[in-house]
Amino acid sequence: MNAQLTGPVLVVGCGLIGTSVALALTEAGVTVHLDDLLADNLDLAVSRGAGTADPVVDPSVVVVAVPPAAVVETVARVLAEHPGAVVTDVASVKTALSSQIAVLPGAERFAGGHPMAGKERSGPMAASARLFEGRPWAVVPLPASRPDAVRRVAELAATVGAVASTMDPAEHDSAVALVSHLPHLASVMVAGLLNAAPDEALELAGPGLRDVTRIAGSETGLWLDILGTNAVEVRRLLTDLRGSIDHAIGALDADPGELAGLLDAGRAGTRRIPGKHGGSSSEFATVFVSVPDRPGELPRLMVHVGESGVNIEDVRIDHEQGRRVGQVEISVVPSTADTLVDALSARGWSAYR
Amino acid sequence: MNAQLTGPVLVVGCGLIGTSVALALTEAGVTVHLDDLLADNLDLAVSRGAGTADPVVDPSVVVVAVPPAAVVETVARVLAEHPGAVVTDVASVKTALSSQIAVLPGAERFAGGHPMAGKERSGPMAASARLFEGRPWAVVPLPASRPDAVRRVAELAATVGAVASTMDPAEHDSAVALVSHLPHLASVMVAGLLNAAPDEALELAGPGLRDVTRIAGSETGLWLDILGTNAVEVRRLLTDLRGSIDHAIGALDADPGELAGLLDAGRAGTRRIPGKHGGSSSEFATVFVSVPDRPGELPRLMVHVGESGVNIEDVRIDHEQGRRVGQVEISVVPSTADTLVDALSARGWSAYR
Repeated sequence: MNAQLTGPVLVVGCGLIGTSVALALTEAGVTVHLDDLLADNLDLAVSRGAGTADPVVDPSVVVVAVPPAAVVETVARVLAEHPGAVVTDVASVKTALSSQIAVLPGAERFAGGHPMAGKERSGPMAASARLFEGRPWAVVPLPASRPDAVRRVAELAATVGAVASTMDPAEHDSAVALVSHLPHLASVMVAGLLNAAPDEALELAGPGLRDVTRIAGSETGLWLDILGTNAVEVRRLLTDLRGSIDHAIGALDADPGELAGLLDAGRAGTRRIPGKHGGSSSEFATVFVSVPDRPGELPRLMVHVGESGVNIEDVRIDHEQGRRVGQVEISVVPSTADTLVDALSARGWSAYR
Repeated sequence: MNAQLTGPVLVVGCGLIGTSVALALTEAGVTVHLDDLLADNLDLAVSRGAGTADPVVDPSVVVVAVPPAAVVETVARVLAEHPGAVVTDVASVKTALSSQIAVLPGAERFAGGHPMAGKERSGPMAASARLFEGRPWAVVPLPASRPDAVRRVAELAATVGAVASTMDPAEHDSAVALVSHLPHLASVMVAGLLNAAPDEALELAGPGLRDVTRIAGSETGLWLDILGTNAVEVRRLLTDLRGSIDHAIGALDADPGELAGLLDAGRAGTRRIPGKHGGSSSEFATVFVSVPDRPGELPRLMVHVGESGVNIEDVRIDHEQGRRVGQVEISVVPSTADTLVDALSARGWSAYR
């Protein structure tokens, strides 16, 4: 467990991430000063209670939360302006930035950071003190980073509610390529193939396709930056994925039974993802409830689920165009599934396991 | 709108799908007779109220819900035994089966079917009268199928609550390859790459990776059958996917900006998926709620969400190992998001947009 951070903290850049860090620190009792080249962003962040626009004297930590292209120059400036401060950033790809920052005067007071959190909206009005609650925050030191700089960045992460993991820049970029950038591209490419299909084909779409393609709906611009700066790692994984495709095509040509190894490896891979839902979904039982697709029905169901007293592990809602009803899937510990079915049936719902 | 089916109906094969069809038809007032080579399955289905094991006289429709390898022989037998009946099946791949059935005596009384519904559990005890509610049901005639046979299979689908779409065998197999089989393999291959990663890399996993890899956790055996029988279509789409990968690798080597077209095509593809959630997620606002990861908190939240009176479009729960809290994402119409945030905040929750 990391100790609480001691301020004052200067946050440079009042976008979604910077303002959210500032709001969370302020809520934790840390004094926060704010800076932004855009007066509007700065005013909005101050008006939301994220901190003060007054100049800071001798900050403990400076958080550089500016766009990727401005990180190195901003880090250089704040290292020079605040010779007693630890400096960190929030950029999502680390190797190239780290090499450039490592040669700056004062680089021993720098340790990078990458909060694994975001939202579809950007800017200070989308910020929230809760954005990092329970999320991973990679702490990415330089070889020359002083131990107290690394510790203070981990304290920053803990103070805003995140879970810090320390790794070097290459490990970080390799990890995010695997858990974020490649899955994103795979989702995009599967979704892209839908463009050529007739409407009738799409009418057979179910929840599986929705899951796989959900993240493909994200903003193009942000992803261009991320993929471009992590091109080497992404390229390596794309080549691995192409190898898996060649293997699958070969199996289909020769003996589809050979696909068993690929399918088994996929199942094994899902079990490596930490968390309740990374493990086999068979640890939970699913209760299905049919819900008429009209306003008020879902809240009514939620009230009844709450009244049942059964603890819910997950909820998924599947309602599709042109269908009379939606289907709600509620995951529960198997021993409680019948209790939930009975409670919902008694309240008039079509519930079943 | 399809008319209600007139019985009696004979269901051959009392597994998950057959018993669910029988339960739904019985509930709709249709007389159902059951048959299964396995006496245990038949007894269980009868005990669940799915129908009678008495021999049927002159059925209107026979539903062949046996394993894929037994479909042709069973269809041949029931076409011969019940010369006045329309016969259908529920197999998930159609081209090869259709060619074999087309040469059987009485084939003009056959029209294939494929309900797009399933569960992780199998067998008659997992069956439910609600399994097909709101789900697509492909109706797949032979070239020689009589119009009344096709109509009666569509009536069967409508009577059990499904939404019938008529298509030919090649269209069907191409459609399910695109909306189900390729996404499944892509999910499997992305998940498979996780096996080689260090634990630290997986600690950075977020909801996007979970979405993309969720279906990779499915049973290997079932998928081997499906992929093997639809090998030609699956192979074609895998080759297309390999083409997309080559395009992406080329862009990363030359100018990552060229990835913009691929990313835009992915976004466009997600918008082709029918239904509320196929469209841009920006039509809804997301309210985030932090929920302590202990029993009883989620039901309590659900009660409060219900009390707010705000209509919910979707709910997602993200709780990860080693984190103090889970995060619940509630999608609502944007104009109601502030009402929900206020209602939850007033009840003590950390809720934000």
